[in-house]
Amino acid sequence: MCEAHAYNEIAPRSGVAFTLDRGQRLTVIDPKGEQVADLLAYNRRDTGEVLSSGRTLDYASRIYLTTGDPLYSNRSNVMLTIVADTVGRHDFLLTPCSKDTFRIIYGDTDPHRGCFGNLAAALAPYGIEPDQIPIAFNCFMNVPIDATTGVIRVEAPLSRAGDHITFEAQTDLVIGLTACSALQSNNGSFKPIYYRIDPPAGA
Amino acid sequence: MCEAHAYNEIAPRSGVAFTLDRGQRLTVIDPKGEQVADLLAYNRRDTGEVLSSGRTLDYASRIYLTTGDPLYSNRSNVMLTIVADTVGRHDFLLTPCSKDTFRIIYGDTDPHRGCFGNLAAALAPYGIEPDQIPIAFNCFMNVPIDATTGVIRVEAPLSRAGDHITFEAQTDLVIGLTACSALQSNNGSFKPIYYRIDPPAGA
Repeated sequence: MCEAHAYNEIAPRSGVAFTLDRGQRLTVIDPKGEQVADLLAYNRRDTGEVLSSGRTLDYASRIYLTTGDPLYSNRSNVMLTIVADTVGRHDFLLTPCSKDTFRIIYGDTDPHRGCFGNLAAALAPYGIEPDQIPIAFNCFMNVPIDATTGVIRVEAPLSRAGDHITFEAQTDLVIGLTACSALQSNNGSFKPIYYRIDPPAGA
Repeated sequence: MCEAHAYNEIAPRSGVAFTLDRGQRLTVIDPKGEQVADLLAYNRRDTGEVLSSGRTLDYASRIYLTTGDPLYSNRSNVMLTIVADTVGRHDFLLTPCSKDTFRIIYGDTDPHRGCFGNLAAALAPYGIEPDQIPIAFNCFMNVPIDATTGVIRVEAPLSRAGDHITFEAQTDLVIGLTACSALQSNNGSFKPIYYRIDPPAGA
């Protein structure tokens, strides 16, 4: 925690996990611009309940989510609500980058563990196993789709320095959060991510 | 099994589970047209490994999959390969319809258990829990996207009577398969699904 700025810093290509109480607000900040942060959420009282892109996109009838949109669990409960968003373009289709991503897509012979490995390590103390890591809500990730062919491209994030997105917890959660490790997702460089936890609105 | 036609029938709004050996081919047939079938696959030796839309779409760089495309697991192993497809439009974004789907989207007060409930019941004898049900590969489901707004629509399947898709198992699997229970996905009526298991090609 940097007291002067009241935010926490996630170093480039790393990840953290922490608890978020019902009503608390989590703000994810892109301090330098064009940097993705993968977000996961688990029910703190039963970590078999986790963020579900499939449920969320089905109920929203939309793949691009922003202010006002709820993020549902695999049990169809609202886990988080987006309450502020200065960017408006995030991805909820793709799994966290991993050793396999770097091997299969980039051809790396000694691949980084990626957001997947960073999340697995950070979530392990909460008893969450790697197989419980689903599609993440990828803050600031810019994945346009060609409507005719279905081709997806990973383009530079639309976020500029200081842009941010804020989520309100609808139940007591364990959060996993990264500064994404994939070159393509972050326009070719690895930058930090900042985050801040605020008390319930009006508290 | 109907011997005369050598296929198995899944009754409308129901589901089944069965094993598929490495090399065997599973053909899913839409006998009347405009009927969706939700498909899941688990590693039979370790059911923590399951079909992953997020991994598959990332590696394919495409949301619409067809002949030649591999379907990956959450551990980035290929579980199934699509080896034939007479339709070319399937969905891999949305979770199986469920009681909650019917409550939230359709406003049903006494909702059907949906594909989710059907899959959970069929997979239970294999030790697979409801929380292990991810986004399914939704054969014949037609979900176009507006590239600008990200709005998704569930439209009538493009499949006509007798259309089919064939998958080859790349490892020993447990398969879950349904005749989908959601009105909107099936152009307003509930029809059966047929399936057939064939030995490895050339065997």
